Amino acid sequence: MYSFRNDYSEGAHPKVLKALTETNFQQTRGYGLDPLCQKTRDLIRSLCAAPDADVHFLVGGTQTNLLVIESMLKPYEAVISAHTGHVNVHETGAIEGTGHKVIAVPSPDGKLTPAMIESVPELHSDEHQVKPAMVYVSNTTEIGTVYSKAELQALRQCCGKHGLLLFLDGARLGPALACGDLTLPDYAALTDAFYIGGTKNGALFGEALVFAKPRPDFRWHMKRRGAMLAKGRLLGVQFQALLEDETYLEAARHANALALRLRDGVAALGYPLPVESPSNQQFPVLPNEAVTKLQDMGYEFEVDHAVDAGHTMIRLVASWATPEQAVEDFLRDLASCK
Amino acid sequence: MYSFRNDYSEGAHPKVLKALTETNFQQTRGYGLDPLCQKTRDLIRSLCAAPDADVHFLVGGTQTNLLVIESMLKPYEAVISAHTGHVNVHETGAIEGTGHKVIAVPSPDGKLTPAMIESVPELHSDEHQVKPAMVYVSNTTEIGTVYSKAELQALRQCCGKHGLLLFLDGARLGPALACGDLTLPDYAALTDAFYIGGTKNGALFGEALVFAKPRPDFRWHMKRRGAMLAKGRLLGVQFQALLEDETYLEAARHANALALRLRDGVAALGYPLPVESPSNQQFPVLPNEAVTKLQDMGYEFEVDHAVDAGHTMIRLVASWATPEQAVEDFLRDLASCK
Amino acid sequence: MYSFRNDYSEGAHPKVLKALTETNFQQTRGYGLDPLCQKTRDLIRSLCAAPDADVHFLVGGTQTNLLVIESMLKPYEAVISAHTGHVNVHETGAIEGTGHKVIAVPSPDGKLTPAMIESVPELHSDEHQVKPAMVYVSNTTEIGTVYSKAELQALRQCCGKHGLLLFLDGARLGPALACGDLTLPDYAALTDAFYIGGTKNGALFGEALVFAKPRPDFRWHMKRRGAMLAKGRLLGVQFQALLEDETYLEAARHANALALRLRDGVAALGYPLPVESPSNQQFPVLPNEAVTKLQDMGYEFEVDHAVDAGHTMIRLVASWATPEQAVEDFLRDLASCK
Amino acid sequence: MYSFRNDYSEGAHPKVLKALTETNFQQTRGYGLDPLCQKTRDLIRSLCAAPDADVHFLVGGTQTNLLVIESMLKPYEAVISAHTGHVNVHETGAIEGTGHKVIAVPSPDGKLTPAMIESVPELHSDEHQVKPAMVYVSNTTEIGTVYSKAELQALRQCCGKHGLLLFLDGARLGPALACGDLTLPDYAALTDAFYIGGTKNGALFGEALVFAKPRPDFRWHMKRRGAMLAKGRLLGVQFQALLEDETYLEAARHANALALRLRDGVAALGYPLPVESPSNQQFPVLPNEAVTKLQDMGYEFEVDHAVDAGHTMIRLVASWATPEQAVEDFLRDLASCK
Repeated sequence: MYSFRNDYSEGAHPKVLKALTETNFQQTRGYGLDPLCQKTRDLIRSLCAAPDADVHFLVGGTQTNLLVIESMLKPYEAVISAHTGHVNVHETGAIEGTGHKVIAVPSPDGKLTPAMIESVPELHSDEHQVKPAMVYVSNTTEIGTVYSKAELQALRQCCGKHGLLLFLDGARLGPALACGDLTLPDYAALTDAFYIGGTKNGALFGEALVFAKPRPDFRWHMKRRGAMLAKGRLLGVQFQALLEDETYLEAARHANALALRLRDGVAALGYPLPVESPSNQQFPVLPNEAVTKLQDMGYEFEVDHAVDAGHTMIRLVASWATPEQAVEDFLRDLASCK
Repeated sequence: MYSFRNDYSEGAHPKVLKALTETNFQQTRGYGLDPLCQKTRDLIRSLCAAPDADVHFLVGGTQTNLLVIESMLKPYEAVISAHTGHVNVHETGAIEGTGHKVIAVPSPDGKLTPAMIESVPELHSDEHQVKPAMVYVSNTTEIGTVYSKAELQALRQCCGKHGLLLFLDGARLGPALACGDLTLPDYAALTDAFYIGGTKNGALFGEALVFAKPRPDFRWHMKRRGAMLAKGRLLGVQFQALLEDETYLEAARHANALALRLRDGVAALGYPLPVESPSNQQFPVLPNEAVTKLQDMGYEFEVDHAVDAGHTMIRLVASWATPEQAVEDFLRDLASCK
Repeated sequence: MYSFRNDYSEGAHPKVLKALTETNFQQTRGYGLDPLCQKTRDLIRSLCAAPDADVHFLVGGTQTNLLVIESMLKPYEAVISAHTGHVNVHETGAIEGTGHKVIAVPSPDGKLTPAMIESVPELHSDEHQVKPAMVYVSNTTEIGTVYSKAELQALRQCCGKHGLLLFLDGARLGPALACGDLTLPDYAALTDAFYIGGTKNGALFGEALVFAKPRPDFRWHMKRRGAMLAKGRLLGVQFQALLEDETYLEAARHANALALRLRDGVAALGYPLPVESPSNQQFPVLPNEAVTKLQDMGYEFEVDHAVDAGHTMIRLVASWATPEQAVEDFLRDLASCK
Repeated sequence: MYSFRNDYSEGAHPKVLKALTETNFQQTRGYGLDPLCQKTRDLIRSLCAAPDADVHFLVGGTQTNLLVIESMLKPYEAVISAHTGHVNVHETGAIEGTGHKVIAVPSPDGKLTPAMIESVPELHSDEHQVKPAMVYVSNTTEIGTVYSKAELQALRQCCGKHGLLLFLDGARLGPALACGDLTLPDYAALTDAFYIGGTKNGALFGEALVFAKPRPDFRWHMKRRGAMLAKGRLLGVQFQALLEDETYLEAARHANALALRLRDGVAALGYPLPVESPSNQQFPVLPNEAVTKLQDMGYEFEVDHAVDAGHTMIRLVASWATPEQAVEDFLRDLASCK
């Protein structure tokens, strides 16, 4: 039976594994200063239409989030996040671990709006309070929703007006690119920092971080937090394999398409999906008995929360590796739970 | 004209100043290890009916809060606070500065209840989230409300049930002692740590921190954060002067009484005081013109927030030093603003 | 031309790559809780003859060092290291970044002795100084020297006597195992924590950390510092491949053997190697012209330091991947520099 | 019997106590923004001939040291100190507690020279090492030695050449001003930050920190570390009293003069004082029996270290409050120990 638990349940896309194997015996310097990484940095700058961008490769998302925030803020500055933001709820206080407060703003759909942000700075006016200095958003969000270009432009404008940096967590940038109207050049132009998530879209691991402007001391920050991979070239090789052609985008399109098939199939069976997600995470509400039966059959997924005494919201995630047959099997088996 | 801005607008209670002057030329060891401090520690243990309690003297509230939290929690543990809590909104991220998350819980009156607390741990069940480990309350609260003994007992029971420490910020413990049913022995018995605030109730400065159980390494924590006063005996002398007789309690009774006279006088003029505070902070809602006129006359107070287009909530604070005449003058002048 | 710059210039040992490829499409839970990791943990416990040991997989050495130290020490506690120790000089202040002081002790050969350690605690007797709480050693050391079993036993005894934890950095544990008299069960029995380094001995990346006693909250520490790999199984798979047979040991034996061939060949040419290293790092002192000629030929290596106006110490490192022919070519070309 | 243990064994200079008493009932705003502090800031700027200097008042030295370093350095930057420096050995890791490494340089007399400093940056050239960014010196030093103007100018030049900030700990600036050729305008012109120590020279407590250039966000740093005194005016009042006339300087002259009388008296008895200190700390080497006898008589002083089996170095400190008679009594009693 299949696991819809996450988009990092398998290893790497075959193209990535092939590239790692082919370059395995090339000798390179360590720590990401090798020609393989440099070439991939150039590729990313080109794809982003951002010739001056600063590109760094990191192993994982929490590491990337804490480093961007720590390196861009002064000790007493804070970051604004939706209350559902990964940095607020799912990183064991990693941001606070670097000394910074996360100011959580309630959001109905995991997204921030200018109105939500604008209420914050005026409440933080003097030295007895942290100074809001950055806005953190994720795309797709933690619940699969997606920012439109107009929405991100509005955030950018709001940040500019209030002297706030804008940082976009792209752990699931693939699914966002595959279903929204924002392009890599848009992300580079509208944010101060964002990243192209590899871990959840075909890489063994890795996030490609893009700063709009050079950050010459970022490597000191990386090393200090133990985030500089010795064989840094592994990251360059993987992103080269994913981004040199359509692989990255196709992997995400596949994930989204199968998730939407799950969504439509679940809806056709009459079950609600209250979160309007166009991407690779879907949140059906099922009767508790159906949830248990599916688990007994061996399906794996996360239980989100109990909606009422008889119903539970679950999360289904599709990835680049999810076979169509697994989706059809799941829907058939879900139908049988009625 | 008088300032009702805060309860630390003047220097020290005359009895405190006298004690400092009388002991000025005694030679003692530094850092709080002198006989004057030891004697005051014994006095506090006795007043708290807590012979095993560990007593430390600190200069101010933020310093005390960050040290208690840092010294009692592991790096990944978090503290639960009302959203209005001083540690959450008014310490420039001091708690996060020690690496700990403050989990803010909405509270209508500045107080926490077991129900508010119990919602938190179940949302923080694994290593991807901070581990709630302590509950922070303040008494009186930041808006002047006061816990009853029954309420604090219920919190204690809730904390015990969930393995949470209970820490009570007593920056305004004087006003709380003077108007509630909680005694020093109650605080010592019901909390893991609390403090007797001096700064806002007659001392030049200083907080007397009481741990229910010995904390043998707390002095290392103090020194590391620059919180160990060289002439530590200044703190011992002040608390001796305040606590060896009724001075501390009478100072707070005076502050509360004048604040209630302000409250009643304001209410008699027909202005609402939406926060039900029995202590030395009162929050009238006045027409904007009245606020401006009072300021023009030279009265000082904090503007809390705009209630609507025509009305503003202000904060009036009385202290041990507030003269009765200042209160009567204010009420007369407020009446003239009609 | 060959690079003797480091032991992480290539990718992974073919056996490791094969194992990653074969398990690529297995679906597993994330974060190291999968069956592949669990099986490898059991294997390591068995190899260490330590059935109660706690085993965690991490991506790199700096990350592992900072986490062990942060998770085992209280905020005001410090770690003692040789002045050459990686944590002291080569981690951009990663340990201080977690709030802990590194007390550096001068060492002629990169190793610590009980006498060096014992001078420290007596200088740190009260709360005005950090409290030494842990001894950090590395094996092999940063300059290739190796502890004997008797030496490590003496350190263990000294640590026990003074209430100090003993932590051994095993980034190059392979070369140490391959040339010394210490076994995995010895390391597990004599230290409070040590790790089996993968990055420098055949893995793509990864360190297998072994705590002598369970550390139930270590995963919270890991996550908070961004050190929990999403596809944790990658680490389990790699260490399984290295440790299930003699691969790990043979890789290190090969590295050591070729380094000793380099040593002997260099010495035969009359050049001194002042550091007595029996392992895969060698430090010849060469005339400056020879260094330049070798570099011009395309050889890569680290320049350690200028010994005098005419001579330079360089570092030559051999790895599991170094071909014998590369060593012979180097020696021939070095001879031609005369 | 008298205590020569420290220069903070008594309370405050009578002029300071008088000023605190006289201003006790003035109402002011909190946190150092009051007219009393503003006036004292102007006085200090005037005394320093530094009209643009930024002046902040803090309670103690460790607090000041950690805040200056934390607020001026980036996370991966380090401070260079003599190995005897207060920040290196006597602050329980307070600097590391803010995430910064202290690079300790051996110094024979507690002072740094350009040659000592210049050896450091070249050893820290890339992102694998901390970046030295500041030089920390203290005057008088921890062992009573004093920088000349020429020496401080040389350090300034060296710092300028290497892009290093220069920070001078003035916990004992009074004794340095009273016996050296450096003036307040010199300190302001030659350092990036220094402070005028009050605690050890007549104040109840307090350090007046002077930044050569405005540091507009320093108050955020202060508050975040719990270092903003609620009744900040206490600091302004004290420094006004000390600095508005010759009080501060005379207090230090008295301390130095009595210490030199101690020095000369001890030397006349034939006991060596190996540290050449011209200021208020003196370090005689006495026979162990003499030390014990003096202690038995009730004299208090710090034992520095055992020089050999029969001799001990002790520390004698004189202060503004030391009576001449106490010194003569001590010398007479020391003579009787022969």
